[in-house]
Amino acid sequence: MTRLGPGREFDRVRRIAAALGAGAMDLSDDAALLPAAGPTLVASTDVSVEGIHFRLEWLTLEEIGWRATAAALSDLAAEGAGADAVLVALTVPAAAGDDDVVAVMAGAGAAALDARARVSGGDLSGGPAWSIAVTALGWTSAPVTRAGARAGDALWVTGRLGAPRAALEAWRRGESPAEEARRAFARPVPRLAAGRWLARHGARAMIDLSDGLGADAAHLAAASGVALALELDLVPVAPAAVAESRQLCIAPEQFAAEGGEEYELLVALPEGFTAEDALAFERACGIELTRVGRAREGAGVHARLAGSPVALSGFDHFAAVRR
Amino acid sequence: MTRLGPGREFDRVRRIAAALGAGAMDLSDDAALLPAAGPTLVASTDVSVEGIHFRLEWLTLEEIGWRATAAALSDLAAEGAGADAVLVALTVPAAAGDDDVVAVMAGAGAAALDARARVSGGDLSGGPAWSIAVTALGWTSAPVTRAGARAGDALWVTGRLGAPRAALEAWRRGESPAEEARRAFARPVPRLAAGRWLARHGARAMIDLSDGLGADAAHLAAASGVALALELDLVPVAPAAVAESRQLCIAPEQFAAEGGEEYELLVALPEGFTAEDALAFERACGIELTRVGRAREGAGVHARLAGSPVALSGFDHFAAVRR
Repeated sequence: MTRLGPGREFDRVRRIAAALGAGAMDLSDDAALLPAAGPTLVASTDVSVEGIHFRLEWLTLEEIGWRATAAALSDLAAEGAGADAVLVALTVPAAAGDDDVVAVMAGAGAAALDARARVSGGDLSGGPAWSIAVTALGWTSAPVTRAGARAGDALWVTGRLGAPRAALEAWRRGESPAEEARRAFARPVPRLAAGRWLARHGARAMIDLSDGLGADAAHLAAASGVALALELDLVPVAPAAVAESRQLCIAPEQFAAEGGEEYELLVALPEGFTAEDALAFERACGIELTRVGRAREGAGVHARLAGSPVALSGFDHFAAVRR
Repeated sequence: MTRLGPGREFDRVRRIAAALGAGAMDLSDDAALLPAAGPTLVASTDVSVEGIHFRLEWLTLEEIGWRATAAALSDLAAEGAGADAVLVALTVPAAAGDDDVVAVMAGAGAAALDARARVSGGDLSGGPAWSIAVTALGWTSAPVTRAGARAGDALWVTGRLGAPRAALEAWRRGESPAEEARRAFARPVPRLAAGRWLARHGARAMIDLSDGLGADAAHLAAASGVALALELDLVPVAPAAVAESRQLCIAPEQFAAEGGEEYELLVALPEGFTAEDALAFERACGIELTRVGRAREGAGVHARLAGSPVALSGFDHFAAVRR
């Protein structure tokens, strides 16, 4: 129950709390109170802005809330942490009504519940455009940072890559993306259980692929003080990305590695982690785990495709959104 | 040291980390890792939007960062918690440069350091206007919520009220506010140490006055299930608010009670808390503690001024900012 004094802003908070139901904690206080459920708190904040991260023609309001929340939760997945709570600071354009606000918050609440977390607080404001800043909070006893990869470790990725970029490229051309691509962009699933499985099975370093495999491998390499050799031929490509890459005459594996806005994990595992271990992961988590490279002494990312070096460029998502 | 791969966004993060120095933790990971420093995590998120919460003509960029951070930290003060970390999701208009971003973050970092906290993470985005969403994280073993006031408790406020409203009213008239008023609006000091002192000395319920004494008393009354009787004659009024209230022909005490955007605390203390205890608070904390009313059976806020009932209206800060 949310007990607040009178006022229009507080009426909105009451409506949000009612719509979230079990997905929300008591929102009466300005601050959320969470029992410490592990020795280390993992906290990440992520902002999604209309016209920068998404366009209203592309996503429903529920999807805007889901996607922003999933993005914040994904950073917890990459630490091998469990999710506990999200705080949502929502900025609402003047033309939007209470139903619109409730729709965005319902999407945020659904993404939180899907990750076994709850909406535990937030803030509401007016503003020139939709903007949603989500802070995800969770706990772990052994965080996996970006910094632990060592020379000799193998690099693996979860799932298949490139579908969110396929959606953005289709929208950029003014077309409707394939449903698989649209869904990957609109309702990404943070890999929380997979991240915890990998943490339990020796993961030395992890990062999600929100900047794309090439750029995120560069972050992991810099943080760990190693070079990363990527064998692009091995990169698992989502079917929608294969079709879309043809339109641009880019090899599907390069298209996928230069993507981003996706929430699969790149993980460095010691050499002792075998193909059989990867099968155990796939059986447990229901998604693929594919070896895509190796860490070695040195610095930077060194990608090869069909035997030749490839310079991976970062994909400019913002340009895709702005057009 | 912040170790990230190449890219313009990451260059900005590197510049921010360098500018913050001791005020920042390692910002390399997407997620902040904080050792649990108490049984209960207190988390609050607060968003400040250009044109809604402030105008660029009023505040320096450092002050924008300071004020947004202080607002989030104030919610921790009202729980009697200590502050540990802040996460800052900053949205930057296209015309702003790296120096502008660093200035806002330096203000956020200074407010955090002033509260003995550090900037531990964040996010950067483009957007149509400046917007800064700050999540404050801290710890307590005995949170003080809004819900603990009981009939018979006395109500006290810290500091003197009305100065931020005085600044807004002056700006609304197109004039420059008195320096005391401007400073109260631009560089509010969250009452973290005072909140902890009050928590240690029996506080049953607390709330900060970001919505104004009248509106926040209504929240506290609703959460606690009591009526609150406010004796406005007792409300401590900041000198700048006295002068400003004359312009509007509003009694200074009513002007102050209908203010807001300020970060003093309203606290319910048991009857046994004496005037001598209040003096001990003032000696310890260097700010006033003034008794302004009482909780009793019932519901709602009942304010009296010079012997007559007064209906307190909420002050519409947003209208003041928008003009």
